[in-house]
Amino acid sequence: MATATLASWAANLEYASLPESVCDAARRSLYNYMGCAIHGVSHPTVRKAYQALQPFFGAPAAHLLGTRRQTDAQHAALLNGIASHVHDYDDTHLATIIHPAGPVASALLAYAEHIGSVKGHDLIVALVAGIEAECKLGLSVWPSHYDVGWHITSTTGAIGAAVAVGRLMRLEPPAMAHAIGLAAVQVVGLREMFGSDTKSFHPGRAAQAGILAAVLAAQGFTSSEKALEAKRGWANVVVAGGTPRLEHFLAELGQVWEIERNTFKPFPCGIVKHPAIDAAIRLHQQLGKDGDVSKVLASLRFVAQVHPLVIELTSKSAPRDGLEAKFSVKHGIAVGLLFGKAGPAQYTDECVRDQFVVTVRDTVSTESRSDLAADEALIRAESKDGVKVAEVHVAHAIGSLAAPMDDQALKQKFEDQVSLTLEGEATKEAGWLAWNIAESSNVSQSLSRLAMWEGPFE
Amino acid sequence: MATATLASWAANLEYASLPESVCDAARRSLYNYMGCAIHGVSHPTVRKAYQALQPFFGAPAAHLLGTRRQTDAQHAALLNGIASHVHDYDDTHLATIIHPAGPVASALLAYAEHIGSVKGHDLIVALVAGIEAECKLGLSVWPSHYDVGWHITSTTGAIGAAVAVGRLMRLEPPAMAHAIGLAAVQVVGLREMFGSDTKSFHPGRAAQAGILAAVLAAQGFTSSEKALEAKRGWANVVVAGGTPRLEHFLAELGQVWEIERNTFKPFPCGIVKHPAIDAAIRLHQQLGKDGDVSKVLASLRFVAQVHPLVIELTSKSAPRDGLEAKFSVKHGIAVGLLFGKAGPAQYTDECVRDQFVVTVRDTVSTESRSDLAADEALIRAESKDGVKVAEVHVAHAIGSLAAPMDDQALKQKFEDQVSLTLEGEATKEAGWLAWNIAESSNVSQSLSRLAMWEGPFE
Repeated sequence: MATATLASWAANLEYASLPESVCDAARRSLYNYMGCAIHGVSHPTVRKAYQALQPFFGAPAAHLLGTRRQTDAQHAALLNGIASHVHDYDDTHLATIIHPAGPVASALLAYAEHIGSVKGHDLIVALVAGIEAECKLGLSVWPSHYDVGWHITSTTGAIGAAVAVGRLMRLEPPAMAHAIGLAAVQVVGLREMFGSDTKSFHPGRAAQAGILAAVLAAQGFTSSEKALEAKRGWANVVVAGGTPRLEHFLAELGQVWEIERNTFKPFPCGIVKHPAIDAAIRLHQQLGKDGDVSKVLASLRFVAQVHPLVIELTSKSAPRDGLEAKFSVKHGIAVGLLFGKAGPAQYTDECVRDQFVVTVRDTVSTESRSDLAADEALIRAESKDGVKVAEVHVAHAIGSLAAPMDDQALKQKFEDQVSLTLEGEATKEAGWLAWNIAESSNVSQSLSRLAMWEGPFE
Repeated sequence: MATATLASWAANLEYASLPESVCDAARRSLYNYMGCAIHGVSHPTVRKAYQALQPFFGAPAAHLLGTRRQTDAQHAALLNGIASHVHDYDDTHLATIIHPAGPVASALLAYAEHIGSVKGHDLIVALVAGIEAECKLGLSVWPSHYDVGWHITSTTGAIGAAVAVGRLMRLEPPAMAHAIGLAAVQVVGLREMFGSDTKSFHPGRAAQAGILAAVLAAQGFTSSEKALEAKRGWANVVVAGGTPRLEHFLAELGQVWEIERNTFKPFPCGIVKHPAIDAAIRLHQQLGKDGDVSKVLASLRFVAQVHPLVIELTSKSAPRDGLEAKFSVKHGIAVGLLFGKAGPAQYTDECVRDQFVVTVRDTVSTESRSDLAADEALIRAESKDGVKVAEVHVAHAIGSLAAPMDDQALKQKFEDQVSLTLEGEATKEAGWLAWNIAESSNVSQSLSRLAMWEGPFE
């Protein structure tokens, strides 16, 4: 029944029946996604993919977000999906560590532009349908599915994208079930690829797979009515030795909204480092309140107490570039202390190699504390001879479920990212368009107005 | 080392080093593939896919085989891959039940036409590289991978296609390794889809995934140098509880040639049914030698003794159309008894619903015998009151490794298929072109000459 349950729920979801809190969460997820994608489009990974795939582009129908470049909707979904994930700065559904918007919104915006004249509310209801689908499926196969090595964002994301596009097309439940099946056979993404271009390829390819699944199903292409729950269906195959819990989680559709549990990263790096960075920023505010913080820092050293996973995953002591710095908690702490920020500008290669950043980084030591929660951290500032000067305890890091980024912080994040690719006024305009796309009477027009630069393409 | 081993072997494979028997096997595999694809292109499944995907087609660069329609190479690979498998009439590597040519040749022919001026010998060496890759990988994860529910043709086929296209592009070993990794993250195909349009979508999508992987890797896109063998790499993730044997099988590359173990189906249905059909055809020859077999049949009933898998997989007693009939051993036996043939003409909807076929079918009963080999079957003809009239024992079914179809039988099969879409003289011409493409000085020219009809597209 799982496939039929999901298909029927998604096909019948209406904007009017969405709680206000769900609409709000959807708007925030979409906005955060757009900031990530507009920023990410200038990344070399996207450029390489663009160059490689240009010979196959169909008639221009959808924009690479923020740029004037258009490709066919499937390639736009692929490229925007890569762009949205390439800085590891996208959203996180903490219970599954799925990054929900990447596959779903990439498919949805591209396909909405492809068909034209889509209303913002229709976009939102489709986005919610897709994100609920992927997260419920993710919960159903968690944790064994992720543990064995699947990149859960894309393996569930293809199905989420198919559901979203299917909802936008107003597929009837039987066709929606076939779309789910067509996406379920395209299982994309292995964790082995983390650290390479292929990691961000995963959500892009999942987005493309979702469009493909939906348009084939709309044409009467059949798959299976039990694609998810059959003995040799998706869940049993990908759960990798665990026991799928499809019925349990799909029974909660429309009651427990996963999109409300979506969180946004304040910092463009793995979420485990965030409590320590948050503590460093608060320490920056304390230490800098009477004058130039850099002078104060020069006389101090720092001890960070963190959850053991932080040491396990982000222990690079001497990162050589922005990518390696994502895996260095010490770099995150150093820029937090120095700049009171740890945004994309603090993860450029230049910043990572900056001499003063390196000097501060080398005064940071870390201690593993298994009694700390995952969103908790402590940093103590000491004089060089070991006298405690200040201490900050973060009980719940900014961006966690207990301390979510508010709208103002999200807008700041958007501008910090987008200003790296767009000019000043364009950043403001882009922010306005992205924030208000949910209320747009024509999504294509909003996306056309977002097309503000040529992009980094030859 | 597995990824590097495969990448290096494939990148360095040369036509001059291929044994004559390997070239011959490659030519036969390619020829059989082309017959299947030219026939399959008129199938409704292909038409639906064409209609659905037309809005996304890029500039025309590769033909849908046999037709004058061209799409971009990726869509041509997808559609030809569907066409090649849609009648379940393609080749089989018996040790893994992979259908090797579908993903690999679909990618290869489309990409060869895309780049132009490819020699037949270069096509052959790339085909061999791709087929060896997919079959060795299939052996490495067999049988647990298939047992859990993966459609092994497409899960390994994406990698085979990437290797083949990579060899055609002359990727260096490091880029070839990244191409393998990019294909390895696109795991396509679930057995749950058997009996639906999505089954033949699998090899098509795998072909497309292979092209995508190769062109991205050629542009410097990175994946992992240990994509196949890493702890969370392809083999460990997809082996589904078994133990991958990559090193063992990849060590045999170039020594044991899997393409020599490729077999060709005499009948357009699952291979498990073939011994029973072969027995029925031989019984037809016995029973019909003195006159009208249909009169003889009307007074008899039949007991088929078959390997247990035949009952498990093809037990549909009352198939309603050609597709369902593929999963009905009784239909196969009935047409074998009646017509002495079980070719594509005997798997049309009309034939499946023919009253006399149904009548004969209903006189067939089956018995499972676990002591029989997979390529063995027995059929006993009895009078209505149970007296044995005749009996045929097939020790090795036609098309098995022990009783392969010879070139003449392959050519007959090609013509039986292609004559359903092309006119008489065109069938002969197409057969000549397909048989000789391995010696072509320009594959694109051969494929252009094969473009003999408009195809079934609007």
